[in-house]
Amino acid sequence: MFRSLAVVGATGAVGRIMVELLEKSALQFENIKFLASKRSVGKTLTFRGREYSVEELRPEAFDGVDLAVSSTPDEVAREFIPEAVKRGCVVVDESAAWRMDPEVPLVIPEVNPHAAFRHKGIIASPNCSTTQMVVALKPLHDYGRVKRVVVSTYQAASGAGVGGTKDLIEGTRAYLEDRPYQYTTFAHPLAFNLIPQIGSPKHAGYTSEEMKMVLETRKIMEDESIQICATCVRVPVANSHSETILVETEKKITVEKARELFASFPGIVVVDDLPNKKYPMPMDCTGRDEVFVGRIREDLSSPNGLVFWCVSDNLRKGAATNAVQIVELLIRGRPN
Amino acid sequence: MFRSLAVVGATGAVGRIMVELLEKSALQFENIKFLASKRSVGKTLTFRGREYSVEELRPEAFDGVDLAVSSTPDEVAREFIPEAVKRGCVVVDESAAWRMDPEVPLVIPEVNPHAAFRHKGIIASPNCSTTQMVVALKPLHDYGRVKRVVVSTYQAASGAGVGGTKDLIEGTRAYLEDRPYQYTTFAHPLAFNLIPQIGSPKHAGYTSEEMKMVLETRKIMEDESIQICATCVRVPVANSHSETILVETEKKITVEKARELFASFPGIVVVDDLPNKKYPMPMDCTGRDEVFVGRIREDLSSPNGLVFWCVSDNLRKGAATNAVQIVELLIRGRPN
Repeated sequence: MFRSLAVVGATGAVGRIMVELLEKSALQFENIKFLASKRSVGKTLTFRGREYSVEELRPEAFDGVDLAVSSTPDEVAREFIPEAVKRGCVVVDESAAWRMDPEVPLVIPEVNPHAAFRHKGIIASPNCSTTQMVVALKPLHDYGRVKRVVVSTYQAASGAGVGGTKDLIEGTRAYLEDRPYQYTTFAHPLAFNLIPQIGSPKHAGYTSEEMKMVLETRKIMEDESIQICATCVRVPVANSHSETILVETEKKITVEKARELFASFPGIVVVDDLPNKKYPMPMDCTGRDEVFVGRIREDLSSPNGLVFWCVSDNLRKGAATNAVQIVELLIRGRPN
Repeated sequence: MFRSLAVVGATGAVGRIMVELLEKSALQFENIKFLASKRSVGKTLTFRGREYSVEELRPEAFDGVDLAVSSTPDEVAREFIPEAVKRGCVVVDESAAWRMDPEVPLVIPEVNPHAAFRHKGIIASPNCSTTQMVVALKPLHDYGRVKRVVVSTYQAASGAGVGGTKDLIEGTRAYLEDRPYQYTTFAHPLAFNLIPQIGSPKHAGYTSEEMKMVLETRKIMEDESIQICATCVRVPVANSHSETILVETEKKITVEKARELFASFPGIVVVDDLPNKKYPMPMDCTGRDEVFVGRIREDLSSPNGLVFWCVSDNLRKGAATNAVQIVELLIRGRPN
């Protein structure tokens, strides 16, 4: 059914990893093409030993394409994805453009695979900071019903794209050499600093990134009653987002039970041995496709609270890995 | 009454700032001496235009000293402070050694000045991450009674002393130059990384730093009913600690009311204008003596919750400034 694939935004930070993951996967396509903005046209790209020229992202580029995975800015996704769908192409989209559209399923394959098959041409992959949190929440929700979440994020520079990473690395280099540096992606210096704003002001003092964590989580979990308070902060880490997550559940979950629930859930790795100084850290999670949890404790401030630390590579499970897993899910088909 | 002063640990990261603050203050002493460990003996130090030799910290060094401000490792404080007290010296101590002793007042001058005058020779200054949080909580508590606090910290390298800052800066330099670097203060690399452990394992999976935030807060606020859940994380920031703080109060506090309460409380500066990208950041708070709050929002997940972002220079209000303010309080005397 899906014989030809297009990778849209193939030269971006997430796109490059999508290409890498597709290359390593068992997926086979008769045709594959790599699309990007005009700027990247003419670049070449090697896929499974063959060279491909990057083609321009235009409506006609989707002619004869069955399936696309797309990682572009929101406004690009808003413009081109309807054109792809019009041409019979199913699009797995990493952008925020379509996530909250009631017609578009928002999918994490470990969490709500069934939703993917309700698509009408577009399937959205969630925001990076949401995905890792929801993967961690899901086994707790299934066991004890999550009622409330308080989350603080520690988000890496790469979440702002290639320019974000460049800003952090070059800004830090300049700082250490006592040279000025003009940040292009971030509104403030990030070297040895923190920026408590990701996205634009959205609702009641919360940013768009913070509201994504609220609204996308409810949509994926299919539970509008979950109460969520998020604070999103950019930290001078190159890659992998981290989060402190406090969860209040209807049914009490002990630390031992939580560890067991996490460990038996697909895609979660538990690293939790404080006496031996073992817990997930960005440096260890970068390049990995799983969601890592540690520092699991009972909340000292509520009867049914649990608190933990969660790290995941935001370019992988937070973006490319999840999108490619949706592609695999679509091709594998609905479970019986 | 207090004619002679000793500064203990005068050459450390906090000690140097205590010396600077004392120099700039209106305080006058007939005698002042600077004590430090053997390693620093012989170093000289300029204070108000006069040169002083650093003297060795020995019990006899406190003979004839009325008042001391001390910033040393806990074990040093445990050994020498009783010797100072025995010699009639009142000690304002920055270490954790005596903070939870029921005989020792734990004081933030804006919060519980009265407690200072109950001392029996030792007055403790709280942990850095606790101090800035409690300053921010106090006006909310006075107005609406704080019942519960959920805090996640973003703590700077300088909180681990001079060695911590060196580890971060040299570790980052080495990372950028692709050289190995042996961290001496931190158990893991901090360059472009996060370490979700500060202090040692203490209680039910919480670290000593996290439990300080629970126990010291209750002691300073004189309210054992306040429920607190803390997660403390070391971030690759050179100086100034940041915190996301969620507070649940008995009486509802609106954002407008909170802003008013914060702004009229001594030692708090409100920087809260998200549409114009203004909020406290470590780079702006370093070298400042106040506690900065911003990103003030109503909690979306509870009826009487308020959430905000709080930054303060951990070496200043978190340590040196608070200690020197206690000295000023003692000298000014009990308010009528």
